[in-house]
Amino acid sequence: MKHLALALATAGLLSTALAAPAKKTKPAPAPKMSAQEILAASPASHWRGLDPDNTLLMELPSGQALIELAPRFAPAHVANIRALARGGYWNGLAVVRVQDNFVTQWGDPDGDDPTKARPLPEGASAKLPAEFSVPLDRVGKAAGFTRLRDAEGWAPRTGFAEGFAVAANPKTGKAWLAHCYGVVGAGRSDAVDSSNGAELYAVIGQAPRGLDLNITVVGRVIKGMEHLAALPRGSGAMGFYDKPEQRTGIQRVRLLADMPAEERPALQVLRTESATWARLLDARRHRSGWFVHSPGYIDICSANVPTRPAP
Amino acid sequence: MKHLALALATAGLLSTALAAPAKKTKPAPAPKMSAQEILAASPASHWRGLDPDNTLLMELPSGQALIELAPRFAPAHVANIRALARGGYWNGLAVVRVQDNFVTQWGDPDGDDPTKARPLPEGASAKLPAEFSVPLDRVGKAAGFTRLRDAEGWAPRTGFAEGFAVAANPKTGKAWLAHCYGVVGAGRSDAVDSSNGAELYAVIGQAPRGLDLNITVVGRVIKGMEHLAALPRGSGAMGFYDKPEQRTGIQRVRLLADMPAEERPALQVLRTESATWARLLDARRHRSGWFVHSPGYIDICSANVPTRPAP
Repeated sequence: MKHLALALATAGLLSTALAAPAKKTKPAPAPKMSAQEILAASPASHWRGLDPDNTLLMELPSGQALIELAPRFAPAHVANIRALARGGYWNGLAVVRVQDNFVTQWGDPDGDDPTKARPLPEGASAKLPAEFSVPLDRVGKAAGFTRLRDAEGWAPRTGFAEGFAVAANPKTGKAWLAHCYGVVGAGRSDAVDSSNGAELYAVIGQAPRGLDLNITVVGRVIKGMEHLAALPRGSGAMGFYDKPEQRTGIQRVRLLADMPAEERPALQVLRTESATWARLLDARRHRSGWFVHSPGYIDICSANVPTRPAP
Repeated sequence: MKHLALALATAGLLSTALAAPAKKTKPAPAPKMSAQEILAASPASHWRGLDPDNTLLMELPSGQALIELAPRFAPAHVANIRALARGGYWNGLAVVRVQDNFVTQWGDPDGDDPTKARPLPEGASAKLPAEFSVPLDRVGKAAGFTRLRDAEGWAPRTGFAEGFAVAANPKTGKAWLAHCYGVVGAGRSDAVDSSNGAELYAVIGQAPRGLDLNITVVGRVIKGMEHLAALPRGSGAMGFYDKPEQRTGIQRVRLLADMPAEERPALQVLRTESATWARLLDARRHRSGWFVHSPGYIDICSANVPTRPAP
C-alpha cells in the first residue's frame, strides 16, 4: 500500500477536477476525472507527431534519448545542431560531465585542445549569435502560446509554447525558454556568442532558472531522460570526470529526418495549447484522493508534457 | 573554456555581491566577493557540527549518504527512525523504486506482505501520528528561522531553519519542511497516519512542492546525494523495479551516535541563520562575471546549504 501510496503522490495527476472556465461567475462543480481519464478523453487533435527535422535521437549505452529542438527560440543553434548531427559530429564522443542536481553535459572531450579537437562537419559553423531570448510577440498564436495564470518569482509572465515552458517579460518585450528539468542548452564560454551547439547540456535537477537569459536553450528531452540523469556523477570539479574511462560514450546522434522513416520512433506529444493540457495542469493545482492538502498552484517547471506512442 | 564556462554557470555562486541590508536607503555598493571568498571569510561560529543523535549514515554499494533528521518538525517519526536504525532495520533491505525526476524510495521489498515483512525492531512503533506541519511559532528563534524575502507561489512565507527549507502560512499558523531536492520523507498509504518512517524516499528531481503538507518530511540528505540520485530508474509502474535483482541493496544504515566517535564522518554545515548564508543567497540573486543577466530572485529550493570537512 505504501508503495502505491507514494506512487499516487508521485503521479500527482491521478485525482483531478476539470479545469474551470476563467469566469467571475462560479461554474457548477465539474465531475472528478483522473489524469488517465483526462488523457483517455483527449481527441486526436490535441496530440501532434514529432517533426523529423527538429528531433534528435541520441543513442547511449543504456538506451535512447529523444530531444525535441526549438527552432523558434534558437534558429541559428538549431540549424547548426542539424548540420552537426548530419555530419555525425557526436558519434563516438562522450558525456564529459555529470554534476548532481544540475546538468549532464556532452561533447568533444578534446574540444578545448585545437590540436586534438574533432573538426566540425561541413555546413556547421564554429561561431553563432547568442540566442538567449526572442521578441515576445514572436511567441504568440503561431507558437500556440498559452499563458499560465499562476505567478512565480523568476519571471513576470510564464506559459507554454510548442511543448516548452516559456518565460517572458512584457516590459523588456523578451520571451525565453525556462531552464526546467530536461531542458537542453548550448554550453558557452565567457563571451555570450561563444556557443555553437557542439557542446550541449541537459538539466538533471532542480530547475536552474538563474541560467535563464544567460545561455542559449536549444531544446528539451521528451523521452529517455533517465539515460542522461542516472549517469554516474563526475568526481572532478563541478562534475567533470577525472579520468577518460569514467566518461559515458555517445554511440550516435541522428536527426530523425536522416533515419529511414520506418526506424524513427513513433511518438506523439500532447499539444500545450490544448484543453487537455489545461485540464492536466488544473489537476495538479487541485489535488484530491490521496492528497489532503491542495496547493492551488503550479509552476511551469513542475508539470511534464505527456507523450504517447503514435496510435 | 566551455567546460569551465558552463561550470561557472553551474556553481552560480562564483560571482557575487555582499548582501545589502534591507533598508529603504540604498547602501553604498559593496565590493564583489566570490562564493569561495564569502565562505573563506566566514567565522567558525557560522558553522556547526553534526548532531550524532540526528544524523543517519546510509551505506550503499556506490558510497555513503548522510541524512540529517528534523526532530523539530517530525519528532515522532525521527524518534522511530532512531529506533529503526538502532535495531538495524534497514540493513540488507533495498531501494525499491527510483522514478526519474521524482523520488528514490527504500525500505522492505516485502513490506506489504505481513507473512514476509521484516518485523520492526524493539522500540519502534508501527503506527505514528501524521506530522505534516508544526505550529509556526515553534519555528522561531529557537530554530534560528530566517525568512526569505523573495515571494513564491507555493507558500505565503518561506525561509530556512536548521539547514532546512521551510514554508509557512501565517493565516493557518502552520510551518512545514518544503519538498526540495534531497529532502527525505516517510511514505504513507491513504491514511494520513499510515507512515512510520520504515519506508523512506528522497527527492531526486524538480521540487515536488505539491507533496508539501501531504506527507511527513523527516530530514534531508546533506552529503552523498549522488548515491541515491544516480541509481538506475525502475522500469515498472512509477519507477518500481520489476525484478528483485534490479534493486540496489542497502548495506547498512546507522545513527552516528551508534558508531564509534572516530568512525563518524566529521562534517560541518553552514548555519542558515548566519550572515554568511545570507551573503551566499544574495550572491545567487545578483549574479555577475559569466552572467549577463541577473534574476534578482531566489527561491528556497534553488540554493544548497554548504558543508565542509570539520577543520
